[in-house]
Amino acid sequence: MIKTVKNKIRPGVYLYPMPVTLVGANVKGKPNFMPIAWVSIVEHKPPMISISAHQSHYTNIGINENRSFSVNIPSVDMVEITDYCGLKTGNEIDKSNLFEVFYGELKTAPMIQECPLNLECKVIQTIDTKKGHDLFIGEIVDAYAEDKIMKGTIPDITKLQPLIFSMNDNNYWKLGEHIGRAWSIGKDFKKK
Amino acid sequence: MIKTVKNKIRPGVYLYPMPVTLVGANVKGKPNFMPIAWVSIVEHKPPMISISAHQSHYTNIGINENRSFSVNIPSVDMVEITDYCGLKTGNEIDKSNLFEVFYGELKTAPMIQECPLNLECKVIQTIDTKKGHDLFIGEIVDAYAEDKIMKGTIPDITKLQPLIFSMNDNNYWKLGEHIGRAWSIGKDFKKK
Repeated sequence: MIKTVKNKIRPGVYLYPMPVTLVGANVKGKPNFMPIAWVSIVEHKPPMISISAHQSHYTNIGINENRSFSVNIPSVDMVEITDYCGLKTGNEIDKSNLFEVFYGELKTAPMIQECPLNLECKVIQTIDTKKGHDLFIGEIVDAYAEDKIMKGTIPDITKLQPLIFSMNDNNYWKLGEHIGRAWSIGKDFKKK
Repeated sequence: MIKTVKNKIRPGVYLYPMPVTLVGANVKGKPNFMPIAWVSIVEHKPPMISISAHQSHYTNIGINENRSFSVNIPSVDMVEITDYCGLKTGNEIDKSNLFEVFYGELKTAPMIQECPLNLECKVIQTIDTKKGHDLFIGEIVDAYAEDKIMKGTIPDITKLQPLIFSMNDNNYWKLGEHIGRAWSIGKDFKKK
């Protein structure tokens, strides 16, 4: 029996994979967007999502001001413009004309028409990590999707073709092949 | 110009892709594990991670008791046992012997030897969503990795081969092909 070699490594932000989203907010009346991978679902009913963004980000100003934000999921064909949004701060350039923007019922959460999936979020709670980041918890009050990514009533990940991010080495990846069904494939497991 | 057809869909937990982790805690002195996809990095220095888990989960008892938990990243070859952990509750079956378990400095966060990457976490804050889930924020006090998944000092996602999850349709996927480098490929973007 070969024993696995496992070592202590420097504590770090090791989570694989991460999603890539474009988070939008109106700052001083103009739409601004930043790529965010530190995002997670936190509640089911009602649906809630969390994003963690450093307090120095220009977009944070708008989220705090309007108590709303959008989470937009870009497809792989939007990788360049998505990455571009992370290279430039809204403090220096105007990102309001990079995309076709639309609004929902909240009126203040700018959503990206070019992204096939959009979540319109109302801030429920803001948690200060005390180390630089704001963790915003938003209720998903509405969702918008392109017809072509839907399979029945839900988005289909193979049609959506989201970006997949690996932190630390900083790479974007595509979705790969199907492995199995969740809450199902484990039925075959028998402990040896 | 063809206008994109975009429709309002039922608000839901639409985030693609999601990671798949096995979260561990000692409950009544015994290791227990549950698969969690609602997980995100929330801070860089020190590294912090959030997990959202319904208050009815057996593992939550241990996290609250010991103020610690582990986040273990299974590889694709562990899909059956990972899914199995989600099919069975620790309230009914003993999961302590499903894996070879080891402990780090916290002493109370059971980590899975078979998972190539492990994060040992100390609870910093617990946020009650008021709708059923506890959002635990943990500081990653130590990290452990198999030699074979490392590229220099950081884990390599192509060697790690993590599981990728799509919610709502409930499927597991592999990582696909490389698209480009983050904070780099966007330099090629020129607004048309």
